[in-house]
Amino acid sequence: MKLYHLPLSGHAHRAVLFLSLLGQKAELIEVDIPNGAHRTPEYLELNPFGQVPVLEDDGLVVNDSNAILVYLATKFGRKDWLPDDLKSVAKVQKWLSVAAGEIAYGPCAARLVTVFGADFRADEVIARAHRILKLIDQELEQHQFIIGDKPTIADVALYSYVVGAPEGNVDLMPYINVRHWLARIEALPGFVEFPKTAVGLRA
Amino acid sequence: MKLYHLPLSGHAHRAVLFLSLLGQKAELIEVDIPNGAHRTPEYLELNPFGQVPVLEDDGLVVNDSNAILVYLATKFGRKDWLPDDLKSVAKVQKWLSVAAGEIAYGPCAARLVTVFGADFRADEVIARAHRILKLIDQELEQHQFIIGDKPTIADVALYSYVVGAPEGNVDLMPYINVRHWLARIEALPGFVEFPKTAVGLRA
Repeated sequence: MKLYHLPLSGHAHRAVLFLSLLGQKAELIEVDIPNGAHRTPEYLELNPFGQVPVLEDDGLVVNDSNAILVYLATKFGRKDWLPDDLKSVAKVQKWLSVAAGEIAYGPCAARLVTVFGADFRADEVIARAHRILKLIDQELEQHQFIIGDKPTIADVALYSYVVGAPEGNVDLMPYINVRHWLARIEALPGFVEFPKTAVGLRA
Repeated sequence: MKLYHLPLSGHAHRAVLFLSLLGQKAELIEVDIPNGAHRTPEYLELNPFGQVPVLEDDGLVVNDSNAILVYLATKFGRKDWLPDDLKSVAKVQKWLSVAAGEIAYGPCAARLVTVFGADFRADEVIARAHRILKLIDQELEQHQFIIGDKPTIADVALYSYVVGAPEGNVDLMPYINVRHWLARIEALPGFVEFPKTAVGLRA
């Protein structure tokens, strides 16, 4: 397997983290996005969206972070990470939607503003980040991980941009359940951290 | 089954449409969002996000449109709509992410501005809508439906806000493959349309 990634991308970190939690190896290929490597015809052939991560496995190309999580759990038969009972199927999917929606356009976007100068309205995306963090915090009051007392790919999908939220001026202090949950994920065997940017290291 | 919905919500339409395509019945309960029915303690108990749709099935509550699609396909064993081979699993998931991400914060948001006066930057969300429509159009050049030549829940997840895009001042004329795909979905047995709003009827 090859994983095209960028260390500073939380979307890519989801895939790197999950591979490591599974104890699986992939060749990591860094895509030089700051210098436009995601806009070359070769890369756009792999992923017309021009984004990281992309997983290439024996000719099959998977180019969305949630899809990579589902693909890897399915390929390796890891029902612990992606349970197949009806209730869990629905719950995991719900939080994958949150990762692709409120998280991407909340804490992720807020961090894109400070780290990469992206053109989002900071007040809008920071407010959205707090709304979703409050809901996640409320959910985590009831169990150790997001759908129950064991970690699933839904936790992996949510983790990276939540831990990186302070880099986008989204304070995690009010969310005690979220902070405990981050620590629980960080204690899992195989955990690999989401590197801080210069913005995060200054804070 | 009970489905809490709002006829003008594209997220709710995904669930209504898929139930009908499956030939399954649910009791439809309209949530009076314009008058705040989604902010009552009873409704927030069902869905802390205060959104539609919510599916209630024998005590189990599913409160995200993608999750409802996955839940229904799994419950009724409809592998035609949610194929379980590794490649299809990844492809469907990728487009569910797009539905929860670029579609929700693109054409859906653009329509929320014109129909409900939502506070998004119209130029930002309209531009995002065109970027994703161009990618969908490009994908549909290769096959009849979004992951191949048969419809899946990924098509259902994408349909409602694409067909409603013109209501948010997102012109579909440049996207001929998208327009043919909309017609193909509308020709499926059991199809039910996404009602136009006053904005759409004036256009």
